[in-house]
Amino acid sequence: MKRIIKNIFKKSRSNEDGIFFEKIEKILGFKPTTMLYYQKAFTHRSSNITDVKGNPLNYERLEFLGDAMLSAVIAAHLYNEVPSGDEGYLTKMRSKIVSREHLNELGRDLNLIEMVESKVPVNHFGENIHGNIFEALVGAIFLDKGFSHCEQFIQKSVIIPYVDIEKLEGKVISYKSLLIEWCQKEKKTFHYEVFDDNAIDGQRYFGVKLSIDNKIIAKARATSKKKAEEIASKRGYFAFQEKINTK
Amino acid sequence: MKRIIKNIFKKSRSNEDGIFFEKIEKILGFKPTTMLYYQKAFTHRSSNITDVKGNPLNYERLEFLGDAMLSAVIAAHLYNEVPSGDEGYLTKMRSKIVSREHLNELGRDLNLIEMVESKVPVNHFGENIHGNIFEALVGAIFLDKGFSHCEQFIQKSVIIPYVDIEKLEGKVISYKSLLIEWCQKEKKTFHYEVFDDNAIDGQRYFGVKLSIDNKIIAKARATSKKKAEEIASKRGYFAFQEKINTK
Repeated sequence: MKRIIKNIFKKSRSNEDGIFFEKIEKILGFKPTTMLYYQKAFTHRSSNITDVKGNPLNYERLEFLGDAMLSAVIAAHLYNEVPSGDEGYLTKMRSKIVSREHLNELGRDLNLIEMVESKVPVNHFGENIHGNIFEALVGAIFLDKGFSHCEQFIQKSVIIPYVDIEKLEGKVISYKSLLIEWCQKEKKTFHYEVFDDNAIDGQRYFGVKLSIDNKIIAKARATSKKKAEEIASKRGYFAFQEKINTK
Repeated sequence: MKRIIKNIFKKSRSNEDGIFFEKIEKILGFKPTTMLYYQKAFTHRSSNITDVKGNPLNYERLEFLGDAMLSAVIAAHLYNEVPSGDEGYLTKMRSKIVSREHLNELGRDLNLIEMVESKVPVNHFGENIHGNIFEALVGAIFLDKGFSHCEQFIQKSVIIPYVDIEKLEGKVISYKSLLIEWCQKEKKTFHYEVFDDNAIDGQRYFGVKLSIDNKIIAKARATSKKKAEEIASKRGYFAFQEKINTK
């Protein structure tokens, strides 16, 4: 039996809606105006909700819109960031950034799935749900706030934490291995230590310290131990970069 | 020998630059702010111009950017315009609108090629130059004025004159044939007449009158006789639509 929109998206906000609003605001980094778009972005087709005209109400159309906005924002970022890159280079870099795998990682790190309204148990979804919801969220931001908010959100949640041109170009595969190689060459000891293992709003975070010759060089926090180690290594690498480059 | 940017894009505007500025303004429908973006959009790689850092200066990178903006604007238009269309439908409709063939037609109608700076004679370019320059122009608008000006320009020069959902869906192949069929069934005479054949700024325009039973029903003006006939037929068709639909 199909429910219509009014049943689930009440005008008077219940406690549950209040929690949804707060979570969305935290993810976005700004106050949403029209909650309906975001509620749609988190509604799976299995919910069987339709609008008053009988059109299905779920995230699939928003996913189409968000995908287009994401591509446009990343295109503009790469255009400005890599003035020497030709059309082919820019196209290749963009497809690495917006790859299915990468978008799934983004959506998973934001733990978007816990907010999904669905009749199917969440663990029945495939991996792609993470990226799909992420795209739908971008589409909702566009409808709610326009292109420049899309840009801000993508800057904050995609470009800053995930886009590293050097890595995308394959020049650097892993900062951790780069750093370890250098330590071995220089006969230095290195040590990674998890100093924090925490959950914030149902999302687990790891804090990692990197020490070289028993001196703390860098710290980082991320959603997995591996990622935190990589970020700490990158920070450590840049701290030592001049040394490495001049040897 | 490579020329550098200063030689061609002088700061003091020459007569020729003045003409370029006027033409661009006419095409855009608003005053450009930074002319450099538009000059780049009309520079072919054969010109061999580089910026001060040695990066090639031509429209190819802008084409990448404009393509992304065009896709995003069309996605938003379709999302809003066709609330019943699912993701697959929206994707299919968009690829019809931004097809290579369609973009070439757009660029050709705007007569963009006459403004291209190139060392190769213009008639040596393939058909795709028309669409490529059109995309580059959209990219230049984005850099100069932002997303909302891109939207306005695409609305004015793509969506209003070219995007007809019914036709794209294949429900209507040609309004001319639809109208002729109806005239024959109704035993009415019809007549298309070119009443105007003009050139404005080097762009040829045709004015076509459609008469049914010796009464003028619709007029239209376009860059080809065929297009003007089609637009006049569409106008005539809608004028008669109630009659057609109720028979």
